[in-house]
Amino acid sequence: MGRRTVRREVLALKGSDQRRRSDRLVAEEPLEIRVGGDQFAVTMRTPGSDFELAQGLLHSEGIIAARDDVSSIRYCAGTDEDGQQTYNVLDVELTGLAKPMLDVVRRNTLMSSSCGICGKTSMDSVRTMASYDLTTDHTTIDAEILSSLPDRLRDDQKVFASTGGLHGAGLYDSEGNTIVVREDIGRHNAVDKVLGWCLENGRVPAPGTVLLVSGRASFELVQKAVMAGIPILAAVSAPSSLAADLAEESGLTLVGFLRGQSMNIYTHAERVTC
Amino acid sequence: MGRRTVRREVLALKGSDQRRRSDRLVAEEPLEIRVGGDQFAVTMRTPGSDFELAQGLLHSEGIIAARDDVSSIRYCAGTDEDGQQTYNVLDVELTGLAKPMLDVVRRNTLMSSSCGICGKTSMDSVRTMASYDLTTDHTTIDAEILSSLPDRLRDDQKVFASTGGLHGAGLYDSEGNTIVVREDIGRHNAVDKVLGWCLENGRVPAPGTVLLVSGRASFELVQKAVMAGIPILAAVSAPSSLAADLAEESGLTLVGFLRGQSMNIYTHAERVTC
Repeated sequence: MGRRTVRREVLALKGSDQRRRSDRLVAEEPLEIRVGGDQFAVTMRTPGSDFELAQGLLHSEGIIAARDDVSSIRYCAGTDEDGQQTYNVLDVELTGLAKPMLDVVRRNTLMSSSCGICGKTSMDSVRTMASYDLTTDHTTIDAEILSSLPDRLRDDQKVFASTGGLHGAGLYDSEGNTIVVREDIGRHNAVDKVLGWCLENGRVPAPGTVLLVSGRASFELVQKAVMAGIPILAAVSAPSSLAADLAEESGLTLVGFLRGQSMNIYTHAERVTC
Repeated sequence: MGRRTVRREVLALKGSDQRRRSDRLVAEEPLEIRVGGDQFAVTMRTPGSDFELAQGLLHSEGIIAARDDVSSIRYCAGTDEDGQQTYNVLDVELTGLAKPMLDVVRRNTLMSSSCGICGKTSMDSVRTMASYDLTTDHTTIDAEILSSLPDRLRDDQKVFASTGGLHGAGLYDSEGNTIVVREDIGRHNAVDKVLGWCLENGRVPAPGTVLLVSGRASFELVQKAVMAGIPILAAVSAPSSLAADLAEESGLTLVGFLRGQSMNIYTHAERVTC
């Protein structure tokens, strides 16, 4: 499996002080995701949890709904100049039920980022239909528990601590217990890894949970939460206008600027209790 | 033109204090970029400087090399349910010389993000050929001037100040003078807007300049700088391993963690003088 950090020599300046030292950089490598042998997407990601990433992405795209829709995943092709497996190309084989969805979605490939959505052949397809009705999810979480989560996420981000270069996503229950935490150079990849874990463990939909992300909340992250039936999305930083619009429409509680004892609740504030 | 911020009511909690107030969110809207009438890409962006964004993206993709490769850009189609122009769809008409490049690149659409690259039909095409040889660019910049740029960028980020939700990209000369600053919800879009401005003003390649970005430096941002002939890329936060690899190969000076009087120089440190 790929390394998550890479050592590199750096010249560190601090005022007039100069020194050469070894620094850890977060690894960024392309991952090509194939479905049934055909290329579906290429994303730049931090190696690790690649099968989760692929499944989380396919779920967010509406291609798979459950673990059973995937018959196999394996690393394939992709050898470097020395003939070594790069572990940067993987192939997902779908079961019969999911295959027709692929044709529907293929032309609308949504390959996304902390900033949004791209590769769609039509803007009309940006708003993916949600599979679960969050308006019937009556989860509540205490504001104090919510406020404790960013520190917990940071504590669990092992690679961030060594590189300062990674986004984190964590899924928690309404008592604040950690369900799963993943890191990646891309916030959307970190979320896809969390959602892929949920799929693999039969936890989609995920009522009664909170998804916390380390940075901002874009439209796309709201979409991913809604697709996975997660009722609360909290971000350490600002949400966008469209993220709030989609959250409002979908019945998702959207929390931003979750820092210390402060937070802004943009939509469906009834789930946060004081 | 689209609005850059949107007002929204928010429930602000701070400890036991609760209040409803109006908050400004950064606008996020899809932009569909068509070339010669056919869809090229859809990206989620903050409205504004859309023509620059489109040209910067087409340049980073290797489709256009100069302003003369574009014969016209106009908003087209895209009306909302009330029949109002959304200004979210634009069409770029290429001149004869650039058209053949479109076919070469079309299948390899690179639509990118703060976290990387996506939509490529082949990983082999991730490393786009650079048009300019940075190794012959002998620009130098004083470390003190470099250290002053993040504050200057922040001061120029008008929308960030009101929303906390925007990335910034600024281009500066080696004396520290501001050439152009742009903001966007996506770091790659902010950079594309800067590069589009450069193209429109006949400033590509841009020897003797520094591109500063507000967050991290990914592979893709290095690629954009290299494609535009910018010799120095500085980021307030961490670079990735692949960003450093490409910078090393391409002759680009890559600076990370540019904060106060500190910085880490990952590649081609000879351009930074003390």
